[in-house]
Amino acid sequence: MGLGMDDAGASLQAQMGAMGRAARQAAVALRLADAATRTRAIVAMAVAVRAAGPEILAANARDVADAHAAGLAPAMVDRLRLDEARIEAMAQGLETVAAIRDPLGAETDRWDRPNGLDIARVRTPIGVIAIIYESRPNVTADAAALCVRSGNAAILRGGSECLASNLAIHAAVARGLAEAGLPDTCVQVVRTTDRAAVGLILGGLEGCVDLIIPRGGKSLVARVQQEARAPVLGHLEGINHVFLHASADLEKAVAIAVNAKMRRVSVCGAAETLLVDSADAQRLLPPVARALAEAGCELRGDARARSLVPGMAEATEEDWGTEYLAPIMSVAVVDGVEGAAAHIAKYGSAHTDAIVAEDGVAAERFATLVDSAIVLINASTQFADGAEFGFGAEIGIATDRLHARGPVGAEQLTTYKYVVRGTGQTRP
Amino acid sequence: MGLGMDDAGASLQAQMGAMGRAARQAAVALRLADAATRTRAIVAMAVAVRAAGPEILAANARDVADAHAAGLAPAMVDRLRLDEARIEAMAQGLETVAAIRDPLGAETDRWDRPNGLDIARVRTPIGVIAIIYESRPNVTADAAALCVRSGNAAILRGGSECLASNLAIHAAVARGLAEAGLPDTCVQVVRTTDRAAVGLILGGLEGCVDLIIPRGGKSLVARVQQEARAPVLGHLEGINHVFLHASADLEKAVAIAVNAKMRRVSVCGAAETLLVDSADAQRLLPPVARALAEAGCELRGDARARSLVPGMAEATEEDWGTEYLAPIMSVAVVDGVEGAAAHIAKYGSAHTDAIVAEDGVAAERFATLVDSAIVLINASTQFADGAEFGFGAEIGIATDRLHARGPVGAEQLTTYKYVVRGTGQTRP
Repeated sequence: MGLGMDDAGASLQAQMGAMGRAARQAAVALRLADAATRTRAIVAMAVAVRAAGPEILAANARDVADAHAAGLAPAMVDRLRLDEARIEAMAQGLETVAAIRDPLGAETDRWDRPNGLDIARVRTPIGVIAIIYESRPNVTADAAALCVRSGNAAILRGGSECLASNLAIHAAVARGLAEAGLPDTCVQVVRTTDRAAVGLILGGLEGCVDLIIPRGGKSLVARVQQEARAPVLGHLEGINHVFLHASADLEKAVAIAVNAKMRRVSVCGAAETLLVDSADAQRLLPPVARALAEAGCELRGDARARSLVPGMAEATEEDWGTEYLAPIMSVAVVDGVEGAAAHIAKYGSAHTDAIVAEDGVAAERFATLVDSAIVLINASTQFADGAEFGFGAEIGIATDRLHARGPVGAEQLTTYKYVVRGTGQTRP
Repeated sequence: MGLGMDDAGASLQAQMGAMGRAARQAAVALRLADAATRTRAIVAMAVAVRAAGPEILAANARDVADAHAAGLAPAMVDRLRLDEARIEAMAQGLETVAAIRDPLGAETDRWDRPNGLDIARVRTPIGVIAIIYESRPNVTADAAALCVRSGNAAILRGGSECLASNLAIHAAVARGLAEAGLPDTCVQVVRTTDRAAVGLILGGLEGCVDLIIPRGGKSLVARVQQEARAPVLGHLEGINHVFLHASADLEKAVAIAVNAKMRRVSVCGAAETLLVDSADAQRLLPPVARALAEAGCELRGDARARSLVPGMAEATEEDWGTEYLAPIMSVAVVDGVEGAAAHIAKYGSAHTDAIVAEDGVAAERFATLVDSAIVLINASTQFADGAEFGFGAEIGIATDRLHARGPVGAEQLTTYKYVVRGTGQTRP
């Protein structure tokens, strides 16, 4: 009945509005909490997650059974399944974030003016962050830890298929917050699978959401960027390139190309396209192509690549802009650093790109010309990861140009303000 | 005729699309240009602006005549009027930006990982910045200089009433670029008063705009934030507060309150509300109110303020959220730092707020609790200005929480990327 639906809608709206206001209040408590208190909370979360292992596994078993019954694809079911090792990994992840340098309060710049004003730029929390993510329950713990580390209140909306798991993990998170004397509303989980809740979050909960982070597939991110009435930190696809410069060491070229593509094909840091310098493609491409094929990778090349590797399939225009997330790689022969940079500017997603080169000038020129969040010289694109950067954990890899680029850890979830100290100065 | 309009629309769209592509190309040239080249361009712009003084004044005279004929308000006409002194100020502004530290290429962080990877965070241009502004022609020169200093290509769309002035200034800017060997498309001015051009810019010019900055009144900023399909750096109103703490020195309180409100009432750094600590309002409020009244300011108070200052008008709920930009100030008595911070959180715009206090603990607590872009201790809110911060010039004061807060100078128009240097590392 229409009336019933309206009632349910109004009730959800009231519930989400209350969540927004509670988060806004919790953000004030977090702003005032010192680093030691926030560290204590995250350590206590780790203890609580370990202690609640049986409850979390029981809740997860219900999610898995429901997902099976609903006919979810086995790969998807696997993503949401927890076991004792995964719970231990979650607790260790919390401990890692507890141990990283606290980002808040740091003066990132400070200077005096001729009139005696002392200007400091100080790192501060953003406020309230809403994170919308898909079915991995460990994100609930990671996101809670990163938000508390950075002094932000969190509103978490995970995939419907793991609601029970998320609520069980959240109970442990809330215990950790309480133990440090912080309000348990510092981290809130949306307790309904009603998709209308996502729409309300995107609407900004009456100004109570300062930042929305979508963590999930292309369609989720696109919906969020389309509908959000609050700022979004986007994490788009990784159409990443490995460019073999004419000066490349062949051994490094083989090792990096194979690792960048094949170590794990489903991560956003996986390479999708191999670019080879025309100046020495004959030396480089055949052995690299052979190694990739031996590792189980299908290659799709342009005319010049195919002329050097008999039997290579033909790449279509669509291939260059495709994030395969599969053991498939497109291959193009390009003319030097300029040719590689032009290809990447046209088809890449400004995520992560690598050059293999012994010629340092060429490598640095590539690093200047290629405008991606991460540019690697003689290293695999699979290092595009917050933990590999030393950030402890990450909430994703930002591919937008503003605010934060690359791995988003606790420091990237902060902003700054200026504190100007005077002695009575007025402006003439 | 419908057909004619469609043709015009298609032609405008083609023209704006070409402008976007030219900007994208120019951005590559700017990315490769070194600091000395960009400095030379800005210095040459200053020379060219001085040399083109007569042409700029002639064009401006046409704009002013047209504005008079169109019945524009005298205050608006005055804003767009140039004279020799204003042209000299414009040239000096360019020279100031030429002299500030170049923000590009700086490594804002650099560290090694246990696997030998060397990670550097390097400041880089954003790419293409579109700036939409109202009738002050000097913005054309300021924006051009700040964008070139920060390595960004600029698309400038100024107020229709000063198109001739803007084109004359742009001719000088283009001469400066050419003299440094940079493409003149590094800074482009929209050459039509057709408002559909703004809509096309907000649409992102087919992905060729990386950032949109509206500089103007509330309605312009609101339209941009509503319609933009590219990131926006918002500059909302400044509902700024001066809080007189119980520990305030009376002389400083008087000087700062009067300066913050009355030095210039029309700037975004002007104070709109005076907050007085109830713990010593009797000592502080009457003399400060008297000084403000003597300076020509109308006061509108809450009940407690009015009980201390006979004859003060009554403030309505609307007053607390109003940016008067006029010699009017609302006055509230609040309970300590917490009361002041709560009032500011409820009614402020996170722009600029000041405390007057001799008690350092109270002052620092205010600086922590008040989440505004600029918090001042014992200084006037009118220091909220890029030049006063030492930034050379500014394109506005950002009131959003992401990317940049406070005065937006050249450094705030940059982003960063990670350059990771390895020796063949692959990820295990």
